[in-house]
Amino acid sequence: MEKTIKGIAEGTKRASYILSQTATELKNKALRRMAALLERNAKLIIAANQKDIRYAKAKKLPPALIDRLALNDKRIKAMAGGLNEVAALKDPVGEIIKKWKRPNGLEITKIRVPIGVIGIIYESRPNVTADVAGLCLKSGNGVILRGGSEAIHSNQAIVNILSQALSEVKLPEAILGFIGFTRHEAVKTLLKMDKFIDLIIPRGGEQLIRTVTENSRIPVIKHDKGVCHTYVDREADLNQAETISYNAKMNRPGTCNAMETLLVHRDIAGVFLPRMLKRFKEARVKIRGCVETQNIFPAAQKASEEDWSAEYLDLILAVKVVGGLKEAVAHINKYGSKHSEAIITENRKTAQLFLDGIDAACLYVNASTRFTDGNQFGMGAEIGISTSKIHARGPMALEELTSYKYLIRGSGQIRE
Amino acid sequence: MEKTIKGIAEGTKRASYILSQTATELKNKALRRMAALLERNAKLIIAANQKDIRYAKAKKLPPALIDRLALNDKRIKAMAGGLNEVAALKDPVGEIIKKWKRPNGLEITKIRVPIGVIGIIYESRPNVTADVAGLCLKSGNGVILRGGSEAIHSNQAIVNILSQALSEVKLPEAILGFIGFTRHEAVKTLLKMDKFIDLIIPRGGEQLIRTVTENSRIPVIKHDKGVCHTYVDREADLNQAETISYNAKMNRPGTCNAMETLLVHRDIAGVFLPRMLKRFKEARVKIRGCVETQNIFPAAQKASEEDWSAEYLDLILAVKVVGGLKEAVAHINKYGSKHSEAIITENRKTAQLFLDGIDAACLYVNASTRFTDGNQFGMGAEIGISTSKIHARGPMALEELTSYKYLIRGSGQIRE
Repeated sequence: MEKTIKGIAEGTKRASYILSQTATELKNKALRRMAALLERNAKLIIAANQKDIRYAKAKKLPPALIDRLALNDKRIKAMAGGLNEVAALKDPVGEIIKKWKRPNGLEITKIRVPIGVIGIIYESRPNVTADVAGLCLKSGNGVILRGGSEAIHSNQAIVNILSQALSEVKLPEAILGFIGFTRHEAVKTLLKMDKFIDLIIPRGGEQLIRTVTENSRIPVIKHDKGVCHTYVDREADLNQAETISYNAKMNRPGTCNAMETLLVHRDIAGVFLPRMLKRFKEARVKIRGCVETQNIFPAAQKASEEDWSAEYLDLILAVKVVGGLKEAVAHINKYGSKHSEAIITENRKTAQLFLDGIDAACLYVNASTRFTDGNQFGMGAEIGISTSKIHARGPMALEELTSYKYLIRGSGQIRE
Repeated sequence: MEKTIKGIAEGTKRASYILSQTATELKNKALRRMAALLERNAKLIIAANQKDIRYAKAKKLPPALIDRLALNDKRIKAMAGGLNEVAALKDPVGEIIKKWKRPNGLEITKIRVPIGVIGIIYESRPNVTADVAGLCLKSGNGVILRGGSEAIHSNQAIVNILSQALSEVKLPEAILGFIGFTRHEAVKTLLKMDKFIDLIIPRGGEQLIRTVTENSRIPVIKHDKGVCHTYVDREADLNQAETISYNAKMNRPGTCNAMETLLVHRDIAGVFLPRMLKRFKEARVKIRGCVETQNIFPAAQKASEEDWSAEYLDLILAVKVVGGLKEAVAHINKYGSKHSEAIITENRKTAQLFLDGIDAACLYVNASTRFTDGNQFGMGAEIGISTSKIHARGPMALEELTSYKYLIRGSGQIRE
């Protein structure tokens, strides 16, 4: 196994040099061809997917997981649409980031280049296979995919089709590496290939992220959990606070940018919480509150210490009454996951203290945390949301999949 | 030990939130105070340094290492001077990197922020202690220092003085953490503190870099070895080629941006190599050449496979004759360390192929690789030269010690 994985990694590295210098038009042609072939081979993909579904049902995997695993014509069309959208995005490679001249005449150009080879370790949803392959191709990066065992047949079928598209447009198929080994050791082996892989992006649950962080010799950008807060300040417009909080929780509770904890200023808790929590309760949200919350809204369960750092991804909400901005900031810095945090306030000074004080990728004033998303930011399709602070933070789109190099042009300069 | 290290890391993390919001003027005041106290306490530092020197001599460490370890008035003045220089540099924190408005009215600001807490693991030279403490302070980052056991007394003395300066200007001393444990396990323990440390920068030999890469749960930016090449093309100005190659090797052979391998185009090897290698030989440089080099310059020793990836940091030079640009590029991508590479040619097309084809931080046309340096690039003092491709590449100065966050200001926007 180790030999095979090394062979794949080495091959992708070699091919990535070719891809790094491939013209935008050819990359776009490959993306559009991939999209067309996915749609044309929908039946083949669905047949492979049926195998995965049968195994998943036999193994009694939870229905939510089986739903995420399932492919149909509509989902395959969406995958193809995604690839065509990426083809339409601006190519970040070759962009001049900065250019300057030194007193000795040296001309320095900082230019955007692909990172090299990116390893993606992910779980369940097979559409990720096409999505990340497309983003890496457009940004000039070789990619090595290692999906979950539960989606192995679907992923293999999709990769075969994407590879065919590469071959048809005369790009090396090796730029798209696929690890077919479903054993756990395959991941650990992959994480040792620091000679060939430049970056690892894990996408999945806490256990996966931990395994990757603890075993990788390759730089990792985490797409970790989202424990997002909304803090309703004493000077909030309470109607706005209600609308935004409701949206942050209910728009799509299963996403990483959904609200998990609601913080409320003590001075308005007695007015705000009854109406807000009543509305959540009507939407079948279970409330886990601090003692003060329970006093105001007796239907709330008692929150435990674990609730403050829980990523429910579900119709559960933790609620805490705080003494003011300072306590809210301290709570978020302690329990948050550095993802997306919001304050609702009409006081600009309070808002600024919130923006300054919190260490997170995205900080909102009077808006829903649900906007943390590459497309919503106008950056185009994203490969995920980084909760790391190194290299890329927040939505990670094409530009974040690049590195840079310095070109220094001289006329005989030497150092004294 | 683990408990103590955890305590230090936790304290530095907490203090880093205060530092991240400290005004530029106060940070500069601290830096200038550090500089003044270092000069005033030179005797104390030198006394501590003498202890380290005595141990080093007793342990029969190599003279070159003892020289790097030794402090005197001049070196302490240089340390103080470095801190004053950093005080004069522009503060990167708070800079607006980008600002835009979305169709729904959301205003997005991408703003520069400190990374958080940076762990520096380094060897021997005690001046690094003051240098990195200064750069981290100016960029708003907490720092945890873990120097080599051979410099423990010097480092501790310097840290005590820097801490006194922090305390005098009323900044928390905890922003400067120091690990006094000299055992190897201290490094491994530190590398597990991913809850409190955001980035690890190792500075040292291959063994140190390997230990860090293999054991760290924290993102690492490597300041790895420099195996730098100069390629003299068929269309080079041979006088310029000689001047640049000589400078690249001889200006300071012990630095990471010094030339280790000279590649020469076959068509001009017979003319260029005799004069070039004669000059190197006169400067007592040992030549390790390929067979063709030996045929042209019989005094050259035979190069082994290991020579092509060796970082000599010494008066040794590997020399290889190549068939042309393509072979030169392939050789550099195979054996180089992605640091600094130069081509000497008058042909702009050939130069462009070199710039496009090579995967390295800094690529030179008709100039010496010795210019890879923060100050030479006009970026100010550097914390090192990154050979990683993630986050920062090449000279890593104040700006590279920052991350960013998105501030999103709305007026009630929710996601549909």
